[in-house]
Amino acid sequence: MAGELESLEKLLEKHIPSDDLKEVWRLLYGKQIRPLNLPNSASQAASKEGFDLQGYLFEAAQEQTRRPRTVRVGLIQNKIQLPTTEPVTEQISALHRRIAEIVEVAATCGVNIVCFQEAWSMPFAFCTREKLPWTEFAESAEDGMTTKFCQELAKKHNMVIVSPILERDSVHGDTLWNTAVIISNTGAVMGKSRKNHIPRVGDFNESTYYMEGNTGHRVFQTAFGKIAVNICYGRHHPLNWFMYSMNGAEIIFNPSATIGELSESLWPIEARNAAIANHCFTCSINRVGTEHFENEFTSGDGKKAHHDFGHFYGSSYVSAPDGSRSPGLSRVRDGLLVAEMDLNLCRQTSDKWNFKMTGRYEMYAEELTKATQPDFKPNIIRE
Amino acid sequence: MAGELESLEKLLEKHIPSDDLKEVWRLLYGKQIRPLNLPNSASQAASKEGFDLQGYLFEAAQEQTRRPRTVRVGLIQNKIQLPTTEPVTEQISALHRRIAEIVEVAATCGVNIVCFQEAWSMPFAFCTREKLPWTEFAESAEDGMTTKFCQELAKKHNMVIVSPILERDSVHGDTLWNTAVIISNTGAVMGKSRKNHIPRVGDFNESTYYMEGNTGHRVFQTAFGKIAVNICYGRHHPLNWFMYSMNGAEIIFNPSATIGELSESLWPIEARNAAIANHCFTCSINRVGTEHFENEFTSGDGKKAHHDFGHFYGSSYVSAPDGSRSPGLSRVRDGLLVAEMDLNLCRQTSDKWNFKMTGRYEMYAEELTKATQPDFKPNIIRE
Repeated sequence: MAGELESLEKLLEKHIPSDDLKEVWRLLYGKQIRPLNLPNSASQAASKEGFDLQGYLFEAAQEQTRRPRTVRVGLIQNKIQLPTTEPVTEQISALHRRIAEIVEVAATCGVNIVCFQEAWSMPFAFCTREKLPWTEFAESAEDGMTTKFCQELAKKHNMVIVSPILERDSVHGDTLWNTAVIISNTGAVMGKSRKNHIPRVGDFNESTYYMEGNTGHRVFQTAFGKIAVNICYGRHHPLNWFMYSMNGAEIIFNPSATIGELSESLWPIEARNAAIANHCFTCSINRVGTEHFENEFTSGDGKKAHHDFGHFYGSSYVSAPDGSRSPGLSRVRDGLLVAEMDLNLCRQTSDKWNFKMTGRYEMYAEELTKATQPDFKPNIIRE
Repeated sequence: MAGELESLEKLLEKHIPSDDLKEVWRLLYGKQIRPLNLPNSASQAASKEGFDLQGYLFEAAQEQTRRPRTVRVGLIQNKIQLPTTEPVTEQISALHRRIAEIVEVAATCGVNIVCFQEAWSMPFAFCTREKLPWTEFAESAEDGMTTKFCQELAKKHNMVIVSPILERDSVHGDTLWNTAVIISNTGAVMGKSRKNHIPRVGDFNESTYYMEGNTGHRVFQTAFGKIAVNICYGRHHPLNWFMYSMNGAEIIFNPSATIGELSESLWPIEARNAAIANHCFTCSINRVGTEHFENEFTSGDGKKAHHDFGHFYGSSYVSAPDGSRSPGLSRVRDGLLVAEMDLNLCRQTSDKWNFKMTGRYEMYAEELTKATQPDFKPNIIRE
């Protein structure tokens, strides 16, 4: 990690005097988001266990006919725990142990809904193009060992868990999917949501392993709010966010795995734009660290074959419907971000800006339908 | 303007050492955009005439079968020139003179396509809810005085001009529209593009004056590239940008008028996201300054009636398909931003990221069609 910056926020805070910093945060992050007071025991545990812990508060105006609908959401980013050459089950168990540790702290912080990073129970081995041993990390969404592990955690902590895994769907011809399993705070599996859009970009040609998901744009009515999951590359597709929102999502999670050179300039833009455009909260979670693979592989970018993807830059953050956002977690360390949000802010912002009401969706449904036809003729005016 | 910051960029440059600044620009703006060398005479003229002049370069990789398609685009932001109590034609003429001055400098800088701010030939009087004298600023898109003025300028400088005005459509019952007139570098009127989405937000309830446009998502094939115009509030609607892109736009202009308190945290996000999501360039232009009106008006925000909207914060900027962006123009002064862009970057980025190819638009056309039905049932999973 030598040479990797800890975070943009720390760099700005180091150089800019506090008076000016206030204006910088207003312009960059909508406002200076209030920090959330977290228990000392949580900070101590985070420090001892070596992860970044940050907490922020997203408030809404008081209403007369609705109470505040306050929920605490946890975003967890983490490195893989063992070398990728270790036995599969040992790698999985080590990741389970690490997550249990961080979720314990999340529980201390009063987190109601937690989401892990994309394919969290494995290294991000899709760059290798090899099948074994990586497909052995795939598990049943309904009763695999990782789902069972999450069910125990959920019950223990009364916490909704969004668990993105590599799914093996043995009922449908052993198909693999990139899937988020949604586990209720009761411990029951509520259902699953599959990745809708698959990248074919350099190291991220994941279509070797799985295809576009078939679960559409489901929203899960949990005890703490309506949530949806837009996995990784789906964040580049505004229509994907939009359809989750049309189905009622108040919080859309975006568990991801992405590296600096490719996407770091897009990272702060896309999920935040989705929160703005759809009057909802979005939670962006990225892996962190560099993952080394024994056999080298190419990226289709004219460079030499290599043994790692590059640096997953963490920087997980939360965006609010009013355009504000939290600072990001560390670019180099594991982390837990706790955001307390009043979900009433979604409808309040919608009532202020009216993007759904002014959206003219009938027009777009018609234009989009035409645009998908093979004989579509673009509307071009010439002199 | 007392107390208003000149620009975020100047503030960061003041405090952050140049080594660290490089990393800050990489994280905030995708990279440190190269400045464009502009003629000394242009800088001198800008300084003498009191406007901010900045130039930037967006490059693309060399290809074997296509030459670079380099175009210079100019974004102009300006204050109104006379008090809003002056006679209508004098206010218009003063604005024409100011724009002629700035366009002259743009010509010196080799600009091929220039775009002005929303409703540039008038004060942004839509807050007042009054009809006279404001509707007197409305002109024919085809042969109004402002269009004629632009035709002369276009011919003189061999420049495509995007001229956003308040349009009076006398052929259709004296309807008013918020319209961009596209004038070819030959001086011919190529056509017009109307604002598709109308805000109903505080001071910006513009539906008193005009309704949603009926010109769809036209793209204009100019001598210098395929362009489209997404006027102001349309930038909040990802589908609006998207349909211009589906019709082939390589540069989408967003002439706007928006103020600090309302939208400044959204401003750097939405147009940049559109450039990323649609593999095109976007050019964001905002008014600058504070406009005072004789009769006070309310905003529907519980505050006292007032005589001005607030501060139009300028900050016009260009976003590129690769996620990078230029710095913004001044928050307080008139300005001209010149961006040289190689349009080949659009297809290169598309070939890299494939958002259109992976977009699954048939699925969305179907889902969107269903979502517009009165009996639409959101897809919600309960435990």
